[in-house]
Formats: sequence, C-alpha cells, structure tokens
Amino acid sequence: MTSEGRIGEAMDEIAGVARAARRASGALAGLDAAARGRLLIALADALVDPIVRARLRAANEEDLARAAAEGAPAARAARLALTTGKLDTLVDGLRQLAALPEQVGAVTLRRELDEGLLLERVVCPLGVLGVVFEARPDAVPQIAGLAIKSGNAILLKGGSEALASNRALVGVIHGVLAAAGLPTEAVVHLERREDFSAMLALDGLIDLVIARGSGAFVEQVIAATKIPVMGHAAGLCHVYLHASAAPAMAARIVVDAKCSYPAACNAVEVLLWEPGAEAALDACVSALQERGVELRGCAATLARHPGLVAASEADWATEFGGLCLAIRQVEGIEGALAQIERYGSRHTEAIVAADPAAARRFLAAVDAAGVFHNASTRFADGYRYGLGAEVGISTGKLHARGPVGVEGLLTYRWLLRGEGQISSEYGPGGRAFLHRDRALDA
Amino acid sequence: MTSEGRIGEAMDEIAGVARAARRASGALAGLDAAARGRLLIALADALVDPIVRARLRAANEEDLARAAAEGAPAARAARLALTTGKLDTLVDGLRQLAALPEQVGAVTLRRELDEGLLLERVVCPLGVLGVVFEARPDAVPQIAGLAIKSGNAILLKGGSEALASNRALVGVIHGVLAAAGLPTEAVVHLERREDFSAMLALDGLIDLVIARGSGAFVEQVIAATKIPVMGHAAGLCHVYLHASAAPAMAARIVVDAKCSYPAACNAVEVLLWEPGAEAALDACVSALQERGVELRGCAATLARHPGLVAASEADWATEFGGLCLAIRQVEGIEGALAQIERYGSRHTEAIVAADPAAARRFLAAVDAAGVFHNASTRFADGYRYGLGAEVGISTGKLHARGPVGVEGLLTYRWLLRGEGQISSEYGPGGRAFLHRDRALDA
Repeated sequence: MTSEGRIGEAMDEIAGVARAARRASGALAGLDAAARGRLLIALADALVDPIVRARLRAANEEDLARAAAEGAPAARAARLALTTGKLDTLVDGLRQLAALPEQVGAVTLRRELDEGLLLERVVCPLGVLGVVFEARPDAVPQIAGLAIKSGNAILLKGGSEALASNRALVGVIHGVLAAAGLPTEAVVHLERREDFSAMLALDGLIDLVIARGSGAFVEQVIAATKIPVMGHAAGLCHVYLHASAAPAMAARIVVDAKCSYPAACNAVEVLLWEPGAEAALDACVSALQERGVELRGCAATLARHPGLVAASEADWATEFGGLCLAIRQVEGIEGALAQIERYGSRHTEAIVAADPAAARRFLAAVDAAGVFHNASTRFADGYRYGLGAEVGISTGKLHARGPVGVEGLLTYRWLLRGEGQISSEYGPGGRAFLHRDRALDA
Repeated sequence: MTSEGRIGEAMDEIAGVARAARRASGALAGLDAAARGRLLIALADALVDPIVRARLRAANEEDLARAAAEGAPAARAARLALTTGKLDTLVDGLRQLAALPEQVGAVTLRRELDEGLLLERVVCPLGVLGVVFEARPDAVPQIAGLAIKSGNAILLKGGSEALASNRALVGVIHGVLAAAGLPTEAVVHLERREDFSAMLALDGLIDLVIARGSGAFVEQVIAATKIPVMGHAAGLCHVYLHASAAPAMAARIVVDAKCSYPAACNAVEVLLWEPGAEAALDACVSALQERGVELRGCAATLARHPGLVAASEADWATEFGGLCLAIRQVEGIEGALAQIERYGSRHTEAIVAADPAAARRFLAAVDAAGVFHNASTRFADGYRYGLGAEVGISTGKLHARGPVGVEGLLTYRWLLRGEGQISSEYGPGGRAFLHRDRALDA
C-alpha cells in the first residue's frame, strides 16, 4: 500500500477511535469527586503492586535491550528506564493529584438574569486530548492521571523506542478503568506514526493537542494541524544584571539558571549587564567558568573579559540547551527591555537588582509568562509553583500561560435554567434584566 | 505595482505600525483604574459633543451617499447609518464599561513558595489586537472602548463602505487619547485591504485577531493567519421538545428563538421533537406558520404535518439565517443528543421539558458553549448575560467560550519576587517548598 493509502486507512480507524473516546469521556466527566479520587488512588496502588511492577520491568527491559542493540546513547537509555525511583515518583504524583481539590463541575459564576432565570458558568473538561511525547514512558501514567483528574479522554502517542513500556503502562490503566466499571476507550494508545498524523487531521474530534518534545518538534506539530496545540516551541530566557545587583547573588542565580539543568526550557541562555554592573558580571563570569560553561561575549563584554569567545548575532537568538551562555552589555534597563522584547521567547525573564525601582520597572514592563526579581529562572515550573501536576509550559498568551496544571485541561459551559422566558420580553419598553449575582457555594 | 508588490510594501509598513502600537500599549496597560475610567468617560463625552456629532454626521452622509449611488440595498444603508439612537447607545455602553470593575493588574493567586519567595499571578492585557468587522461603523468606538478597558492596543479594519465614518470615529478617539497625554499609536485605523492581509501575517506582533462578520468570512480569516482568531464561524442551534414540554411554552420559545432576529448566530435552525411531544410540535408549527416561517420536515414530521416542505439531509446542517426552520423527529433524548453532537456548532442548545430528569440529563450531556432549559437560545449574548460589553461569541473551547466580555482580552503573567533563591536549594535533601497561599486583597 502507498503511504497515502496507509494514512487514509489510519484516518478512518483513528476517527472511529476518537469518536469512541469522545463517547467514553462522558463517563470520566461525570465522576463525582470521591469516585475520581478513588480512581487515581487505584492507579497509584496498581503501580505499587509487585506483579504489575514485574510486568512493567519485563516490558521496559525489552525496550532497553533494543536501544542497546541499536547502540543508543546512554542518555536515551536513561530516559527510557522505568526505574523503581521513577515509578515511586509517579505513584506519589498520582496520590497528590487525588488530593487536589475537584475542579470539574465547579460553578464560577451564578447570576439571576431575572426571577426564575438562572445563569451558571460551570467548569467542564475540554473533551478529548491528543498527547504526543518523547521517549519517556513515565509520561503515560502522568498524563493519564491528569486526564482522569480533568475528566478528559486521551489519545496517547509516545516515542517508538518506548513502545513495549508504553503498551504495558496503558494496559495497567485499562485494567484500573475496567475494574471501576469505566470504558477503557477513554484512554487510547496510538502505536504507529500514521496514527498520529491521522489524529492531527481530526479537528472537531480532538479538542487540544499537547506536544512534549523539542522546540522543532512542537513547531512541526503546530504546522501540521488546525487543532490548538499546547506546548512551548522555544525557551530563550534572559537574566539581566542591574547596576545595583549584588555580585554574589548574581553569580548564584546565574549558575543555577544555567547549570542546574541546561537542557531545560527555563534555563538562561543570554546574560545582559549594564554599565555599573561590572562587579556582578565579573562574579558571574568566574563562577560560570568554574562550572565549565562556554561564554560568548559582545565587544563590550570582551573588552572586560578578553578570554571569552566573540558572540555572533545568531547567539542572541540561540537556545543553547547546554553549557554555553551568551553575554551582552545593554544601555540600562530600557536597553535590556528592548533586547528581551526582540529576542526573548516570552517564557521567563529575570532581573538581579537591589534597587526596588529597577525591579518594579522590569516586573511591570516585560511581556513574558514569568517575570522574576532576584530568583533563578529555573523556578518556572508547575511543581515549584505548587500547581500539583504539570501539563507543560505554555509560551502562548491565550487560555493558559507559563506552567500549566489541571486548569489548562478544563473549559466551561454556560447553563441557563428558565421557566419559559423569551428574549423579546426584555429591553426598551419591556422587562429589565436583574443581573443579581448569587453566592457560589449556595 | 503588482498585487504582491503592494502586499510586500504594506507588510513593512504595517509591521512598523504594529511595533509602534505594541510600544504604545504599555501606556494603556499602565493606567490606574481612575485614569482608565476617566478616559472612557472622555470618549463618551466626546461622542455627545454637538460639534463632534456634526462632523460624524457629515462623514457618515458621505458613506451613505456612496451606498445610495451604488444602489446598495436598504439593509446595508441601515447598518451604515450612524443614527442619534446608535450614538446614544454607544455613549451608554462606554459609561457602563467605565463603571465595570478594573481587571488589569488584579492578582488572582498569591503564594509564598518559601519565606521571602513570593509568587503572584497578575492579570494583564494581551498586548495588540487586530480587529476586523463588517460595515457597521458603531463597532469602532465600541471596540476602542473594550481595548481601553482591557489595556490593549488595536489595529482596526472596517468595511470599505464605512471608510469616511470609520476615519472620523478614529479621529475622535485619537483626539481623546492625545488630550489625556496618551500615544495615539495605540489605536490604528487600517484603510486598505492589503493592510489587513499584511496584518494577518504578523504573528508575534499581533496577539489576537477578532473577526466579526459572516461565518464564511471568519473561516477565511482563520485559514489566512497563524494568529489565534476569536470569532464564531457558525451558529447552528437546536431546540429539543421533550415529551413533557408544555405546548404553549414550547411555541413561545421557538418563535422567539427563530423570529426575534433570524440572522443572529443564536437563532434556532433545527427543531427536534420526540414521540410524545406531538402537542408541543403542533403548537410550534402553528405559531411559526403564523409568523410566516418556512418549515421543512423529516418524514415523521411530514406524516403529522403533510403541508410542510420535505427536508433534505443538508437542512440538518444549514444555518438558514432567515425565516426557515428544519424539523426532525428523534428517538428520545439520546437521539437528540446524538443529532446535536453530529450537526451542532457547539454554540447554544436548548431543551423544553417539564420533566426535571430530562433537563438534568440534557444540561449534563451537551457539549456546547450554552446549554439552556426552558429558555430561548437568543439569551446567549454578552449584554443579556450581564458581561457589560461583548467582544463577540466564541464557539471554540479554549481561553473564552460563549459570549466574551473584557475578560477575553486579558491574560496573566507570573511574577516571582525573591531574595536570591535558587532552584537547586530545593528538593530531596534540601529545602522543602512552603506553598502557602496568602490573601488576595493583602
């Protein structure tokens, strides 16, 4: 069969699967808080069960053996491995999710439009999520947990390197759903690449695509679908040293922001400094060099630190994702704001300053999901923000911004209950609307 | 010059204008509640001023004369005319907007991550809005008012039929901004079609496009841009008659939903009835026929009302936008839900029923922005919901759903204020996060 033929066939099949998931989503959406909590606890308990663990280990070893046979790098094996530690963390996360307040069904506005005409805005799931993620199988129970908590059905597509592990994990989830009398169609495992391409064409059946992977991958997904995509295509974060920055604090923050996890999207890529911040700059340069970070400087930076590599224009726009940092002098805070506006990815931007007026100006002016004063950009994270589970980090401005928790998987409906009212009774010469807000916990 | 050359030139020009608008948006975003209120009142006052009114009338007469010379239909002239009544309504709307609570700068979450490490989620404008609307010049001050209230800059493109009126109205707004010491670059009037095409290519500079026009037009805009678009491409609403529906109430609701403004997106297009609801159906048919509505029925409907036109499959998916209604028998509530799931546009769906269990099931199960019980679909409207001004109605599920008020033009930023904290101090073996929520009004 041709590749187009395969995709066409996958389209029909995946559309059917997605429709079944949509029907099944009603059962997840309709759970009450107690039943939803029990389901999450049951999934956590299953992942502690020794028989389940043995089954997962066997599947995971299959993937690891294939990776080894293919000569995959150690980093890939590390991402693939379903270690006891990772499983324990997953179990913890599911228990925390169970303990978070129930949001589905919450009434966020209750207004009498008139006597006997009551409007409510009620939180509800989006419906069906398409989720695609890189080679980490631990994403499967994590995302399934988020879907259960938010009442959404999901279609999951993981990296093919983790196929056996993902399949085993989805099997565990299906077992837990079935034991609770819920339709297993609510959690779908897509195994083939063409299934995923087919899913991206199902606007109208899939409400949101969540993409977890490299920036280039997320951009590809966005370009390939009309469905809204949640994911961050880029994380180009700056730290700006104001003249009032304390050198020791600046060095601590910049080392943490660069070195604690250089591949993270919330790691710093460009350090900005203004005239007067030379001592802070010097402290940062020494500390970063001690940690083996390659530093690339503009002309003014090189004038002070002649040993550095000369930065090119491209470096101001590069997400290094490793132990490399570009350093540029700016003309005061307005210069820093202009640089961030031009090159930043609206992810997370930080100022180090003792001067409160400078901090206020920076926090008021920067257009980014996170704007920080005297703290590392690495705090931009759902767990650190206390959101419970993290769906991902969004650099878009609509719906959800920055670290996204369960809230990002929810929407709302307007319910209106009347006694036969019609619109033409109201308005000039007719009845006036009451618009009386009522307590939300009534 | 070729058309491509013109668009290329417009691109550079509009990109420059959009950048200037972005810079100017900071001034609108930074207004405090009192200054924002004064600005809206100043705009309202300007629109009451007799000299301004005379100027607007002259400009509007120019547009009306051109429409008359072109032999435009009366409906177009009616949309174009800036009557005293319309201007008074606009003035009222601006005063109401001024009185609405200030949302920009509101803190919606305040959490101590640790001692001296305070996280806040703060409401802020989206930035720059691109707005395109049909031939109604009254949209200009209305949208400018919403932009001022939400602190956003705007690029406006109206229909060319209203060019002189739109230009005069933008002139009034610029005068009010200048008198308040604010940059007039925050409100941009795009006059040429190629300016609008150029704007749609400016993803990264324009944060949201608001499209007001026909469904086909909104779909064109969505297809032509990577910028998120707010607008509804379709409004295919159903009214479902349950067997327990009171006939008189059913007829009142259906007549209002069809006839009070048939071109509206919240008008009913398809009436569903189940066996047992014959009396309600009969009442609806008589009342609609009295109002001159063309009725098209399925076979079961024709069996009861042989005088009706036979409906075709296409009728179940047609937004008539006029005095025409399709009627179909369904197999009980599950049949109604299936019909709505398949053909509805997720706008507004209503059930007429005396039976509370049927109403509960319908309200729980329908996936639409509005789900109504014993009330006309025509209530789906920002003014009727008491949202103050209405940006539009969204049939998407993300960000804003249903009638959208000022909230739909806002987003938020996460501000973190520390004392030099770094992420690697926290976690296993290190400090634990406090995650202590603090009062929002502190």
